[in-house]
Amino acid sequence: MQLAEEKVFKDPVHKYIYVQDQIVWDLINTPEFQRLRRIRQLGTSYLTFHGAEHSRFSHSLGVYEITRKIISQFERSGYADWPREEKQVTLCAALLHDLGHGPFSHSIEEVFDTHHEDWSCEIVLGDTEVNRVLRRVDDRFPEQVAAVIRKTYPKPIVVNLVSSQMDADRMDYLLRDAYFTGVNYGTFDLERILRVLRPYRGRIVVKESGMHAVEDYLMSRYQMYWQVYFHPVTRSSEIILRHIFRRAKELYGAGYPFQWLPMPMKRMLEGSLDVADYLKLDEALAQTVFAAWKEERDVILADLCRRFLNRQLYKYITVDKENETLVKQLCSELTEAGLNPDYGLEIDSPFDLPYHVYRPDSGSSDGGVSEKPPILLLDGEEKVTEISLRSDIVRSITGLHRGMYHLYYTEEELQKIAPRLNEKTRNRFRL
Amino acid sequence: MQLAEEKVFKDPVHKYIYVQDQIVWDLINTPEFQRLRRIRQLGTSYLTFHGAEHSRFSHSLGVYEITRKIISQFERSGYADWPREEKQVTLCAALLHDLGHGPFSHSIEEVFDTHHEDWSCEIVLGDTEVNRVLRRVDDRFPEQVAAVIRKTYPKPIVVNLVSSQMDADRMDYLLRDAYFTGVNYGTFDLERILRVLRPYRGRIVVKESGMHAVEDYLMSRYQMYWQVYFHPVTRSSEIILRHIFRRAKELYGAGYPFQWLPMPMKRMLEGSLDVADYLKLDEALAQTVFAAWKEERDVILADLCRRFLNRQLYKYITVDKENETLVKQLCSELTEAGLNPDYGLEIDSPFDLPYHVYRPDSGSSDGGVSEKPPILLLDGEEKVTEISLRSDIVRSITGLHRGMYHLYYTEEELQKIAPRLNEKTRNRFRL
Amino acid sequence: MQLAEEKVFKDPVHKYIYVQDQIVWDLINTPEFQRLRRIRQLGTSYLTFHGAEHSRFSHSLGVYEITRKIISQFERSGYADWPREEKQVTLCAALLHDLGHGPFSHSIEEVFDTHHEDWSCEIVLGDTEVNRVLRRVDDRFPEQVAAVIRKTYPKPIVVNLVSSQMDADRMDYLLRDAYFTGVNYGTFDLERILRVLRPYRGRIVVKESGMHAVEDYLMSRYQMYWQVYFHPVTRSSEIILRHIFRRAKELYGAGYPFQWLPMPMKRMLEGSLDVADYLKLDEALAQTVFAAWKEERDVILADLCRRFLNRQLYKYITVDKENETLVKQLCSELTEAGLNPDYGLEIDSPFDLPYHVYRPDSGSSDGGVSEKPPILLLDGEEKVTEISLRSDIVRSITGLHRGMYHLYYTEEELQKIAPRLNEKTRNRFRL
Amino acid sequence: MQLAEEKVFKDPVHKYIYVQDQIVWDLINTPEFQRLRRIRQLGTSYLTFHGAEHSRFSHSLGVYEITRKIISQFERSGYADWPREEKQVTLCAALLHDLGHGPFSHSIEEVFDTHHEDWSCEIVLGDTEVNRVLRRVDDRFPEQVAAVIRKTYPKPIVVNLVSSQMDADRMDYLLRDAYFTGVNYGTFDLERILRVLRPYRGRIVVKESGMHAVEDYLMSRYQMYWQVYFHPVTRSSEIILRHIFRRAKELYGAGYPFQWLPMPMKRMLEGSLDVADYLKLDEALAQTVFAAWKEERDVILADLCRRFLNRQLYKYITVDKENETLVKQLCSELTEAGLNPDYGLEIDSPFDLPYHVYRPDSGSSDGGVSEKPPILLLDGEEKVTEISLRSDIVRSITGLHRGMYHLYYTEEELQKIAPRLNEKTRNRFRL
Repeated sequence: MQLAEEKVFKDPVHKYIYVQDQIVWDLINTPEFQRLRRIRQLGTSYLTFHGAEHSRFSHSLGVYEITRKIISQFERSGYADWPREEKQVTLCAALLHDLGHGPFSHSIEEVFDTHHEDWSCEIVLGDTEVNRVLRRVDDRFPEQVAAVIRKTYPKPIVVNLVSSQMDADRMDYLLRDAYFTGVNYGTFDLERILRVLRPYRGRIVVKESGMHAVEDYLMSRYQMYWQVYFHPVTRSSEIILRHIFRRAKELYGAGYPFQWLPMPMKRMLEGSLDVADYLKLDEALAQTVFAAWKEERDVILADLCRRFLNRQLYKYITVDKENETLVKQLCSELTEAGLNPDYGLEIDSPFDLPYHVYRPDSGSSDGGVSEKPPILLLDGEEKVTEISLRSDIVRSITGLHRGMYHLYYTEEELQKIAPRLNEKTRNRFRL
Repeated sequence: MQLAEEKVFKDPVHKYIYVQDQIVWDLINTPEFQRLRRIRQLGTSYLTFHGAEHSRFSHSLGVYEITRKIISQFERSGYADWPREEKQVTLCAALLHDLGHGPFSHSIEEVFDTHHEDWSCEIVLGDTEVNRVLRRVDDRFPEQVAAVIRKTYPKPIVVNLVSSQMDADRMDYLLRDAYFTGVNYGTFDLERILRVLRPYRGRIVVKESGMHAVEDYLMSRYQMYWQVYFHPVTRSSEIILRHIFRRAKELYGAGYPFQWLPMPMKRMLEGSLDVADYLKLDEALAQTVFAAWKEERDVILADLCRRFLNRQLYKYITVDKENETLVKQLCSELTEAGLNPDYGLEIDSPFDLPYHVYRPDSGSSDGGVSEKPPILLLDGEEKVTEISLRSDIVRSITGLHRGMYHLYYTEEELQKIAPRLNEKTRNRFRL
Repeated sequence: MQLAEEKVFKDPVHKYIYVQDQIVWDLINTPEFQRLRRIRQLGTSYLTFHGAEHSRFSHSLGVYEITRKIISQFERSGYADWPREEKQVTLCAALLHDLGHGPFSHSIEEVFDTHHEDWSCEIVLGDTEVNRVLRRVDDRFPEQVAAVIRKTYPKPIVVNLVSSQMDADRMDYLLRDAYFTGVNYGTFDLERILRVLRPYRGRIVVKESGMHAVEDYLMSRYQMYWQVYFHPVTRSSEIILRHIFRRAKELYGAGYPFQWLPMPMKRMLEGSLDVADYLKLDEALAQTVFAAWKEERDVILADLCRRFLNRQLYKYITVDKENETLVKQLCSELTEAGLNPDYGLEIDSPFDLPYHVYRPDSGSSDGGVSEKPPILLLDGEEKVTEISLRSDIVRSITGLHRGMYHLYYTEEELQKIAPRLNEKTRNRFRL
Repeated sequence: MQLAEEKVFKDPVHKYIYVQDQIVWDLINTPEFQRLRRIRQLGTSYLTFHGAEHSRFSHSLGVYEITRKIISQFERSGYADWPREEKQVTLCAALLHDLGHGPFSHSIEEVFDTHHEDWSCEIVLGDTEVNRVLRRVDDRFPEQVAAVIRKTYPKPIVVNLVSSQMDADRMDYLLRDAYFTGVNYGTFDLERILRVLRPYRGRIVVKESGMHAVEDYLMSRYQMYWQVYFHPVTRSSEIILRHIFRRAKELYGAGYPFQWLPMPMKRMLEGSLDVADYLKLDEALAQTVFAAWKEERDVILADLCRRFLNRQLYKYITVDKENETLVKQLCSELTEAGLNPDYGLEIDSPFDLPYHVYRPDSGSSDGGVSEKPPILLLDGEEKVTEISLRSDIVRSITGLHRGMYHLYYTEEELQKIAPRLNEKTRNRFRL
């Protein structure tokens, strides 16, 4: 159902976001979607880039808007290969695909082995306002939206728009994260890319004339990964977060009496979260819990929470590969000094490829790392070619990854064992 | 003391923020200053402009940076009227002037009659990390910084830089709030304004050639007030916030047994906050408390909190002046229907002048509303003139204010009394 | 006829300009339209703002694009009051309305009393490629396009889009001139304005919700006039240009033997230009002629051309009103010294109103200065109101104009008569 | 000598350009420097990107400004390795390095085998206003400035700033050309690059922390080359220009009687240009000559000029390498049909490397193509490393070049010989 009057959101990235559909409007106004305002898009990146305080709410609207623009351009161009009846399910999935993100998702997912896509689906399918709105379309509609989110929807072209190597999700986050952090990378030509996308035999392809815009998009992605997403200061804060959750879980398992442990957090620690509890988890609650834990008797937990809230992060040095000898030595010295080396020390090596080549025709791939469908170019003779076969620049960055290893540590702990370390090691840590 | 190596923050508004002074760097790293990351710059505006999720932390760095740039341009130009020895106190005051902001300050200040400037001073002077850092300069240094913040510092030129009608504070917030909301207003030419400012006989004046840049700045200010700061949707959410605090205070006074009332919030309700408690108040805590109160037995409080978190705001209509008859009628009908008209109904009329003329020489003023010193132009013959005497555009907007009155209400309550209202009234509220 | 494939121009202001119609594409490729590449949009402004080197070609494409966007939004919204059959004539008129501009039009128009709109019509109707392309639509089509350009087209709504107080022409030039000069003014929210325009009973009106965007647009206009278009340095170069043309006309009339006088220039001087000659006039030719005249024996003409090409402009001082006494004195002294006061001395007072109110209902107007239709707001009850009745800011700038008078002069000439001037006068000119 | 008051130019790329030195100010006001306003920065690119109408005047100011900023940052940082006494010669060389550009330089240089750097030096050293201004510093000063321009100045660090692989020239043109064309590439972080440059042992090096900004700058360069500078439509217009000049030279050599051939053009055709003549060559003159030649009796020349002025460019197809068979066949058919295959047909393959590695230490190079000094990184241990040894992305694009071959042709001529071509060939040209 069309809204009587189009609704408009002012958005710094897309200028305006337009809502014409009653269902989309009602979804935005559910408590579950509003909750995304209390979850930051970039987790702890605001501790590195202070502008990065934007929420998943903003990003979700942005993904919706890019999807809407793509579909509207498909319709205007009258492309026969676009299944027009899929518009609503695509828009809803675009809007809701991140609905299941929790506070500081990446850390929680690692410690508690959950996945935000699963939660997105559970919220879509569970006893929620979102589910009630979706069911107004059709009883099977929530399930269809969930299928797009979990990539099992029968029409791959719909899944492609929402999640592929050049989807509405990535396009929005690169532009948005660049805008809010204030970095110079990440500013590819969205308008041009939207114009060169085409539905073609069940997939999304790129018209040949758009090759350079795609190159630019992939370079943006590459730079954003290394300059923003994998920034070592951000990694440091994420490690601390993981340590907080790991320690709390450990303590909880050992029957430690927390001074304050609100119900949804308790359920998370014991691994018994249901949808209702999960929806109560947001970053306001997480930070409030950390503020309370800062005063817990457990020194490790209290110190980690203090570090996180006051931004007293782990320091780091660059190491060659996983320098096992060094780590082992530090661990044993820390243990000997009565400290717990499970906290305050960690090797980290973030990893991502700017572009994954997977060519179903040739059987070759990038080593099985990924099965993400490749970006395809469509030339004047209606021939489809995987982009790295045509673009020098894409070929040269494909498979490019940097083996950067950082060793994170707390200066105070290393100070304590400094006398036991040799001079070279002391120098490395400037002790 | 100079830092061995200049520190740099990436900032979307100023591109980079440069820290060269050890004291400034240490102040930024105090828990009190880091707490500003958990307090939004624009309070509830993010409910209207979803991009407006930036914190007072970002803004405080921005105010510092503009102040640094002004001073550094004064030094480079070798202006004799700039007291070079005041640099450090000015930079520290610029950085810390908003330190005392609490969660959703404006609402709290109205309900509990506190002032964030007072809290800024208390934190600067109290038993805090900030105080300890400042005292490293000199025992009297915290008091000097506090004096600038409360505008009693003996050198008005220093106070002027941090708070006047064209100060670093306003310049940063106009640019920053425009950037994060994404609106088109608010983008005056900062570089030009910085270049035309001059210290002159104990005040800051503007070189005549900068008149148009000032006009543009004042127009930005005017538009930002009406398009952003006083947006009726934002006002609606602020009224709800005030109602939450007012209701909680009322209940607390009546001995109501809250299910959960963390200590700093309790102290706030009973009016006994000290610095340590105050510093624990942030928006994470406030939102977590609201989430708990959403399930309180008191229907009014629970409903207000639900409205705020789920963004189910009061609706509004425009009314002529303070339409007392209408309000009285609605109140009595609501009371008769067993509802409490103190909540869910409010007349609001925001007010601000784009520019206050106060001409000490003539004795005339804008009616005593303000004693903010006027913006002064310095011409080629070293003559100083108040800007509205020279600028047609400033003169025409001076004293310009719109008497906009909105009546805020909850649709559900009005529905209940609809049958008792006459048709014209029902139509106005589309009941 | 639709183009098989949409054509696209990269444009810095609108990002892309889209051409879908074969006639529009063919018009762009005529020699007459390509000639606009050799005529600068802002005449001599590049001598003040070096970035302002953009051509009328760019601007004409921009006007076309804005018109295309407005019409396409009218069509998408299904507004019944928009006469869909007028699309092509509107687009062609938008594209061609500036076709008749000559080199440095304003100066030429003043000296030779011609009007670029007249030339636009003559080119559209004459023996030109443009005319042949237009006739492919229909034999009467060129006349219809010309009627829109000269504002006699029977449907005012079509004329309104191309020329009114808020037309595609002004919207493009404000944005474009701001972009190329690099000034900060002139950046109103085009996307929003396009969205709030509506065809309504034969006119274009603005939806009430767009009032602030219109305010911002009018403020941009005000600032651009005073900061850019009327910049005294630009005025100085325009006066020199006028003096060049005036002197050449004078010499030609007196039978002066020019060393080189290409045919179209000769025809211009004798007032016998036809369309074919006029189309040969461009700024390349004008500058080449000036370069030749720099070496003419006539000292006045040679000096004026040298001044223009080498940017040795007239200096200026600000005077009160038209200071007749001063001018008279200077004239008589210059004459006495054997100099020609008709050149090298001129009083100038540019004039424009940011917004003209003309209210046909009330009979009142801004003094008959203008009959430009006012900007109209359409409110929720379908009531149409002239904007200054609703907007404080528009009301306060309406009729606002500055009486700035500048006296332009050549320093060298004044040096010669300096001993004969009194001290006060010498000081004013810093002689 | 310092100017009493700093002069300021508004610039869209750098916001403002500041002139503090009297000599720089006087150089800008010479007729030779003002002439650069009549020469476009990007030659014929405006025929592809209509915004690219900016002049070498703007760019020269920009190069000066970047150089000024770099030096001022060197001075502020107190770097001992920067020879402070070289400031003035560096600024003057930066400003004047492009002074010798003629109209559509690249085409003229190819046909007449001249070099704009040589002309820059001749103007600096010849009987010109520029020379007189420079000599006011010192009699040997013009020669010093010329030495920097021709890269023979004894201090390589000075030459480096003005011309190297990351010099003020390239930084300005990438940013400026991106701005005026409106493309999205070319927007690296200038402020950051300026901050990471350091003078170090007689060279300019980049602090290690600036590596990513350099990567971004090189990627910008790569994209600008392929998207803008080598755009096939621009190449087409440059080929036509070359053909015009080649034909005119040929005709002149054969004693052809031109209807109009102004002196400097005549001297160019006969290869006897001196400085005074050269300075009269600008794009206004060139276009005026083309307009006259459009009506010459020589059909080839007239047609070429018509094509250029009316933008009726050669069409092109992509070919594999230099497809000699095809070209030979077309040539012989054209000759047989009585046409001249020297005009209207050309194979073109533009070439440039995004980054040239030349490592003096290893003896290895990129095949002797270039001896441009490499970009050097300086790490925390004061070790200098060539950037491609550290950056994956630079390594992967180093030496990357595309072997793109285009065959340019006139459709009309090929139509004439179409019946003699086989079907496949006809299809390729869509005949």
